[in-house]
Order: sequence, then C-alpha cells, then structure tokens
Amino acid sequence: MDLWIEERNQDTHAVRLRVESVLFSGESEFQTVAIVETAAHGRLLLNDGMIRLTERDEFVYHEMIAHVPLLVHPAPRRVLVIGGGDGGTVRECLKHPTVEHVRLVEIDALVVDACREHIPQCAACLSDERVQVTIADGVAFVAETTERYDAVLVDSTDPVGPAQPLFGPAFYGNVKRVLSEQGIVVSQCENPWYEPDAQRALLDILGDLFPVVSLYNYHNLTYPGGLWSFSFASKGLRPDAAPDAARVAALGQLKWWTPAIHRAAFALPAFQQRALGLEPRR
Amino acid sequence: MDLWIEERNQDTHAVRLRVESVLFSGESEFQTVAIVETAAHGRLLLNDGMIRLTERDEFVYHEMIAHVPLLVHPAPRRVLVIGGGDGGTVRECLKHPTVEHVRLVEIDALVVDACREHIPQCAACLSDERVQVTIADGVAFVAETTERYDAVLVDSTDPVGPAQPLFGPAFYGNVKRVLSEQGIVVSQCENPWYEPDAQRALLDILGDLFPVVSLYNYHNLTYPGGLWSFSFASKGLRPDAAPDAARVAALGQLKWWTPAIHRAAFALPAFQQRALGLEPRR
Repeated sequence: MDLWIEERNQDTHAVRLRVESVLFSGESEFQTVAIVETAAHGRLLLNDGMIRLTERDEFVYHEMIAHVPLLVHPAPRRVLVIGGGDGGTVRECLKHPTVEHVRLVEIDALVVDACREHIPQCAACLSDERVQVTIADGVAFVAETTERYDAVLVDSTDPVGPAQPLFGPAFYGNVKRVLSEQGIVVSQCENPWYEPDAQRALLDILGDLFPVVSLYNYHNLTYPGGLWSFSFASKGLRPDAAPDAARVAALGQLKWWTPAIHRAAFALPAFQQRALGLEPRR
Repeated sequence: MDLWIEERNQDTHAVRLRVESVLFSGESEFQTVAIVETAAHGRLLLNDGMIRLTERDEFVYHEMIAHVPLLVHPAPRRVLVIGGGDGGTVRECLKHPTVEHVRLVEIDALVVDACREHIPQCAACLSDERVQVTIADGVAFVAETTERYDAVLVDSTDPVGPAQPLFGPAFYGNVKRVLSEQGIVVSQCENPWYEPDAQRALLDILGDLFPVVSLYNYHNLTYPGGLWSFSFASKGLRPDAAPDAARVAALGQLKWWTPAIHRAAFALPAFQQRALGLEPRR
C-alpha cells in the first residue's frame, strides 16, 4: 500500500511523509489526534492532520525550547510548560539538575494519553516524580494560579483553534505575573517565510510587557518551510549570555544544542530582521 | 486545475509546490530541464524533476555559497563557478568590487538558455562583461585549464548523473592546482539528516588535499529536509575570520547573509558533528 500523510500550508506547499501503519486515531472535544508509524521518521504525532512531531527529529525542537532559557537562567527550579502534551519539552527540562518541579498544562488529555501509550520516547518522562500533569486550558491556568515559575515554555500548535489565545496579550500579561523575579518565557513563534506578521505581532505583545525580547531560529525537519522560530522574553536576563560549562556538562549528551548553536540561533537572516523591523545584526 | 510538482527523496519523504503553469520543458543529452510558475514561490527550475531553485528563496543558497568564501579571501579577483548554470551564484560574486572575472563552466547549455529566457532574476547577470560562460564538463575543464582562480564554487546538483564526478578526488586534486596561493573552494555538500555519508566522504577527500577544511550549514526552503551544507576548504585561510566592515557595506543590501549569519553557519548541531567524526564544538 502506498500510504502517505501530507501537510499542506497556505494551500501552496506541502510536506509528505511515507506511512507504514496507523497506530492511533481519536477525536477529543478540541481536535483529532493521530499517531502513525512512518517509513523513515519514526512515529509521527498529528493534531488535526498537522505534523506536531516525529521521533526522528523531535529532539531539535525540544532541546531548543528548553535548554536556551534554562541555561540563560542562573538556577531554574520551577518550570511551567503550556501545551506540549507529548512530553518532549518536559523531558529536556528534567535534564537540568536544578529543576525541582515541572508542571505541564495541556488542554487535551487525549494528546497525553496517546503519547504515553505510543510515543514513550517523549512521554515516559511524564511519570517522573518531579512532573505534575494538569489537564486544563493554559490561558485559564496562568490567569488563576498563585504559583510562580522561573521559566514558562509555551509549546503550542499554530495560532488557530485551541492555541489561538496563546498568542494574545491577555495570556502574556498573566505569564509575566506568574514568572519569578528573573523569569523567562519562550514560545513557539512560527515561520519567518510564511508567518512574518504572526512573528511581529507576538514580539510586539512581548515588547509591551518585558524589557528583554528576542527571537531565535532553529531547523525543523518535518514542518513545511523548515526554518522555525522561538520568541524569548525575560524580566532582565539577556539570551546570549555564555552558558556555564559545568551546567552544560551536567545535561549529558545532547543531539542538537551546543553552546555555539545557542549563540548561532540568535543570528537572524537579513530579510527576517527587516520583516521584524530590526536593524540587520552585526 | 490542481497542479503540483513533487520531489521525493529516498522514497520516504517529499516536498510539493503548487504550480500555476509550465513555462518551459526540454531535454538535453544530460537531463530534462523544466521551468514552472508556482503559486507562491515564483519560478521554479527543475533538473530531472528535482528542485534546483525557486525565485522566492534562491538568495539563501546563492548568498551563502558566494559571500562566505569571497569575504574570507582578502581580495578575490577571479572566481570559477562549476555548475550553477542558472546564474544565481555568478550574480552574487559580481557584487564584490574586487572581482574582475567570473567564469561559469556549466555542462548543459539548455540550463543556461532556459534560465536566460525564463529566470532573468538569476541569469541576467550572465551578460555582464566580467562574466565568461563556458559550456563544458567542469571535471575536464579543471583538468586542462592553465588559468588560476582565487575561489572555486562548486554549484552542483546531487551526486548522481552528470554531477557525480564533482564529488570525487580526481576533480578536487585539479581544483587545488587551479586555485591561487590563498585559494578557497566551496561546494554544495548535501543534507546532514539524509546524506551524512556523502558529507563525510567529501570532507575526507578535501582533508587529504587542503590544510583547512570545514562545513557550514544553511536553510533551504524548498529542498526536502530543509537543512543543507556547504563544504569549505582552503590553502590556509580560516573560514571564521571576521569580515571587513567596508567590504560588507560594498555588497549592498543582502537578504540572508549577515556577519552574524556567517559565523553562525559554522556552528554545526551535535548530531552532525558526531556523524562527521568531529568533537562537539564549544
């Protein structure tokens, strides 16, 4: 059987991956969730047909969303992950010996359950005693909680459907309140080729709230358009501080992140800088 | 009409682009050549059905193959481009005021002719008086020429069909002979995810010939797998020298390359360093 999944973007371009079999398909009140075995990319998680992660390359996204802020912070103890029900981001947070508590707030229990069963490479860590999984709307959670976190990682899907409020100002006002004195928030921030307006909009929202705002890029093997960004905002810590060598060594062997990759990620191409209204960086 | 082109790689993944119309399709003794108008990526050049460039993102490849070596060299005057019949690499070379002569050696006249007519964004520069277009086999050309060049840019397709000898040791032995005292050769070097063996093989060949060998990455919007590499080899110049600010300014407004991008490109991800037998870079 010649079986492929395809993700179309803006109806003008698409990525296709060959599929061996369908392992899981279900529907929650929020979205459809599917997990398939691909021919060459390991298992693949799809939300509403959109590629969320593959086992082959998920380490890139997860190392870059977690280690950049957690190594900039001098001693992160408490981390809040919004979205990210697959567990990959939590797994990377737990590599930091200073981290005592990670709360995952995922709106859709079906994502967590499906990944626990079919993608343990990411989700097995959710059983770690330092992790608390909360099935709730992340927007409501940050509005109501009295807890404080050293880092908030917004591991969201695209700004459509349930993830849309995660790109809005009310959410980030509450994120700021939830952050501790040296807190950092990093968020999935779309694609510089196809979504420059979404990138600028999020940076504008963050710029109204935080003294330090930046953007960094990484490569995503299986998302259409391949170049992807995270926003970085903090109450004062700058993102390009040299990471401490002993803390880097404590993380063990990583697959993507290196200190040089950390610095390199903040070098944005000229066209992206101009689209964001920044001066080309020297 | 729902018209798409698709490039499959290793029969496990593919990129698709929506097409509005076919502008040109022809066959030479080497390959088929087609140029289509896409819905969102400008005009697209295909060789044997493989995506060679789109007007939308070709600046990334062409800026990175040209400006990295030409800014590392203190005063490049003569440049040899092997392959690259579309003209995009030549166009970027001509932005350097020191460059007096660019010779393009393309095996297939059909590529040059089709691009002159349909992709002037790249090929118009081939009429510049500093450019000499030679329709010949690049392997034979470097074996026979008595000319000398400050930079050789190997702007080749994948190591199959007519481009295969461009990845071999005999070719690079002659490239070394053709290079001037401070000469640099940069070559299209495939994808770290899907072609690590090809990357290692080329670095091994270069390492037997040149004292300085390195690899740098860039993002390709429309190639399957999105992350791509160039090899860099020189008779002594190191690739990470800080580019001279006055020379950078003389290039005018670029779309991708910045001094920070130049340095960042040499920061390879950990898994790629291990696949190449390098120590993870600090």
